[in-house]
Amino acid sequence: MAAAAAACRLLRLAPRRLRSPRHSLFPTPLALSSGWRRYCAAAPPVAAAATPTGDAVGEFRRRIRVAEVKGGEDQGAAWVGKELTVRGWVRTCRAQRTVTFVEVNDGSCLSNMQCVLTPETEGYDQIDSINTGASVLVEGVVASSQGGKQKVELKVSKIIVIGESDPTSFPIQKKRASREFLRTVAHLRPRTNTFGAVARVRNALAYATHKFFQDSGFIWVSSPIITASDCEGAGEQFYVTTLLSNSAEGGCLVNSIPSKDGRVDWSQDFFCKPAFLTVSGQLNGETYASALSDVKYILENCKEDMDFFDTWVEKGIIDRLNNVAEKNSVQMSYSDAIKLLIGSNKKFEFPVKWGLDLQSEHERYITEVAFGGSPVIIRDYPKEIKAFYMRQNDDGKTVAAMDLLVPRVGELIGGSQREERLDYLEARLDESNLNKDSYWWYLDLRRYGSVPHAGFGLGFERLVQFATGIDNIRDAIPFPRVPGSAEF
Amino acid sequence: MAAAAAACRLLRLAPRRLRSPRHSLFPTPLALSSGWRRYCAAAPPVAAAATPTGDAVGEFRRRIRVAEVKGGEDQGAAWVGKELTVRGWVRTCRAQRTVTFVEVNDGSCLSNMQCVLTPETEGYDQIDSINTGASVLVEGVVASSQGGKQKVELKVSKIIVIGESDPTSFPIQKKRASREFLRTVAHLRPRTNTFGAVARVRNALAYATHKFFQDSGFIWVSSPIITASDCEGAGEQFYVTTLLSNSAEGGCLVNSIPSKDGRVDWSQDFFCKPAFLTVSGQLNGETYASALSDVKYILENCKEDMDFFDTWVEKGIIDRLNNVAEKNSVQMSYSDAIKLLIGSNKKFEFPVKWGLDLQSEHERYITEVAFGGSPVIIRDYPKEIKAFYMRQNDDGKTVAAMDLLVPRVGELIGGSQREERLDYLEARLDESNLNKDSYWWYLDLRRYGSVPHAGFGLGFERLVQFATGIDNIRDAIPFPRVPGSAEF
Repeated sequence: MAAAAAACRLLRLAPRRLRSPRHSLFPTPLALSSGWRRYCAAAPPVAAAATPTGDAVGEFRRRIRVAEVKGGEDQGAAWVGKELTVRGWVRTCRAQRTVTFVEVNDGSCLSNMQCVLTPETEGYDQIDSINTGASVLVEGVVASSQGGKQKVELKVSKIIVIGESDPTSFPIQKKRASREFLRTVAHLRPRTNTFGAVARVRNALAYATHKFFQDSGFIWVSSPIITASDCEGAGEQFYVTTLLSNSAEGGCLVNSIPSKDGRVDWSQDFFCKPAFLTVSGQLNGETYASALSDVKYILENCKEDMDFFDTWVEKGIIDRLNNVAEKNSVQMSYSDAIKLLIGSNKKFEFPVKWGLDLQSEHERYITEVAFGGSPVIIRDYPKEIKAFYMRQNDDGKTVAAMDLLVPRVGELIGGSQREERLDYLEARLDESNLNKDSYWWYLDLRRYGSVPHAGFGLGFERLVQFATGIDNIRDAIPFPRVPGSAEF
Repeated sequence: MAAAAAACRLLRLAPRRLRSPRHSLFPTPLALSSGWRRYCAAAPPVAAAATPTGDAVGEFRRRIRVAEVKGGEDQGAAWVGKELTVRGWVRTCRAQRTVTFVEVNDGSCLSNMQCVLTPETEGYDQIDSINTGASVLVEGVVASSQGGKQKVELKVSKIIVIGESDPTSFPIQKKRASREFLRTVAHLRPRTNTFGAVARVRNALAYATHKFFQDSGFIWVSSPIITASDCEGAGEQFYVTTLLSNSAEGGCLVNSIPSKDGRVDWSQDFFCKPAFLTVSGQLNGETYASALSDVKYILENCKEDMDFFDTWVEKGIIDRLNNVAEKNSVQMSYSDAIKLLIGSNKKFEFPVKWGLDLQSEHERYITEVAFGGSPVIIRDYPKEIKAFYMRQNDDGKTVAAMDLLVPRVGELIGGSQREERLDYLEARLDESNLNKDSYWWYLDLRRYGSVPHAGFGLGFERLVQFATGIDNIRDAIPFPRVPGSAEF
């Protein structure tokens, strides 16, 4: 969840403030997960004299979230008759003659808690402030719901409007807003059904990925985002520099940029040479990647969100994912894939010819049509269209690269066996016009105890797209950066 | 682990190559973790005609690592008599009259596998290539060890040198190398005891952090690293720009930088305005953080590595960590901390005065001396030394900020309650000379359903330092970036 929602869930770390009146908003801890350490009495200071002793530190407390109440098999039935406090944002407010229904969502799941207010409810006089987007604290007793939409609702004894939301200017109104519009309010969109669900599924995919690799004995390595090595021939490079400081009012004077013989003097830059945002951490051995068993994970752990995507975003997505999870994977060589595409006699927009890269339309045809929804691995690509570090096959023309294609998204994973032979690797660097000196450390790995090895990268945002049915990759990223915009 | 070690552990994804002779290096899968999906037969393609069918895809296979053999309670005794294949790097090779001992480390744990070679061993003729740093594959039978150092060793039937390592140039020799030197060979240092252990503990801390928050119902959010918002007054800013492309041989001509009236023309840059590396994702609601129960996690899960740090890096570190994990936390206000420091009559290098920030020496005195090793929370700092978004206390002089101090490292966690009141926040932005327009979205969160909320950040590298006893923070990061160097 984005800023507000996420921050609201963070540990509360100013316990003394709990005594102040405003903090009576957060009353009795409803549950204390056992096993967590208690912070209680202050240890007497070793230094004697007038040193003041410290105060006690409060307990670690866990909020009860709507997901914990309504997320189980019984949809909350076991909670009937129990007291509950819900903190969240108002989705809708419907006033009827004797009762008012307020739908409150706390971001923990798709479901709202339906809160039933009567004129007897404490705080009922604030009814005019209970607008879409307002944050509220609601106390009451869980009851069976008359409505067909949910098993339980909250009979509210007390409501407090914590943060108002002006209905005339709040950008997200009840009606469905377009995803294009929601991108312009990326700070508020996690409060919608779609983006709340995307955030939860994205989180589950990331955690499943970590868990898979930890359980399999892999070690996570953080790789740098700034590099001084030549990039892999990526067209436009993002320089990371401190040479452009706003030395003058109104912007950076070009004349003030350190230079030598009319050229930028990199020796005066932070890293004493040009540095860039890296396009990949793979040369550093980044192992953060994923595998398809994740798909099973979200079908089990994000059921409600997946049902939502199935109904509203892409009909049949659950079947498609089950299909991929259950069907066998197929592999074929790039050369055979080219034959298959030519043999299909289908008209493609982009040309199909040995030596050219496969386009998305080709990849989707192979996995969706030719193999009816199975994941397909294509391997042994022409070396000219692949990176220098991929292992050359014995035919001298192809390299041991592989792409995993899945329906709708096309390439989900790209990987390769790496060139472990020093002489082959040096020759490929030369062929690719790359500077061998920049890669001294990468070559060292072939000089000292080289091993045959392979790796792959998974487009994590593509995995989120694939799993949710979301069309535009910008909607799979909390705060996307695109040409002309680095907003939020 | 860095490049070689990590890559070596990656999934092997080119299964058809297994048939080639070189790949007989990786023979029978020794264990197949159950529950993983099998990739087997190819589905018949839907499209008929001459379309070639795909090949079968091999099974997901898990290697047996040294940690799995020697890491248990019995230190490998249950493996005696069983066949085992070890793949790793040679640490040392000691030739005696009739037998040769080769210590092989595969990066999964601190322990090497002692491999015993005799002239009868297949591959014994390669003995001259078995040097420190060489990668080898060793097959044999696990046996009880005569030596006192380990419970089991491997009686080797076959050894293959996979990648040689020239002993005259391999930079890491048997003797202990200084950490300063090892920083210059960051691509090879994970093969040392210290940096192997740092990598494993770092991994365990990161995973424990994720697990803690997932188990507590938090959602992980990825926040952008590029921002166009003003930074929080960080001195030197790292610009991210595409305007400095090497348009000319020999470097970027200053005259070729797009400009208008002598100033850099940001409208022509990638994001159409100046963009920077962000100094923090916290405004975006990043929730990646940690809590002290992690310390317990590594004491349980990285026992061998922690014993190593206790013996070789910092005597008593395990006691210190246990101490912190078991002792109660203390909290006190900044004002009381100032009184305590002044009352201590200790000579500090930096001045102690209300309104000045606490220095590391002050923080360490409080946690190490005044409170004898307890974690100490200091709260309510003067607003002048803290960021604009922290909530102003009722005294008008301090903000609801907190720092958690621990022995040796000082500040480990910094957090604050955020200012949820729109008018206070706007006033603070003005006071801090920050541009309100850049923060429109952050202010929106106070306009629409604002909530009291708090958050904290943990210096992850400091946590690694704290947990391992490593002095220099550069040694807690796989590939550190520092002024004048963005190597590797």
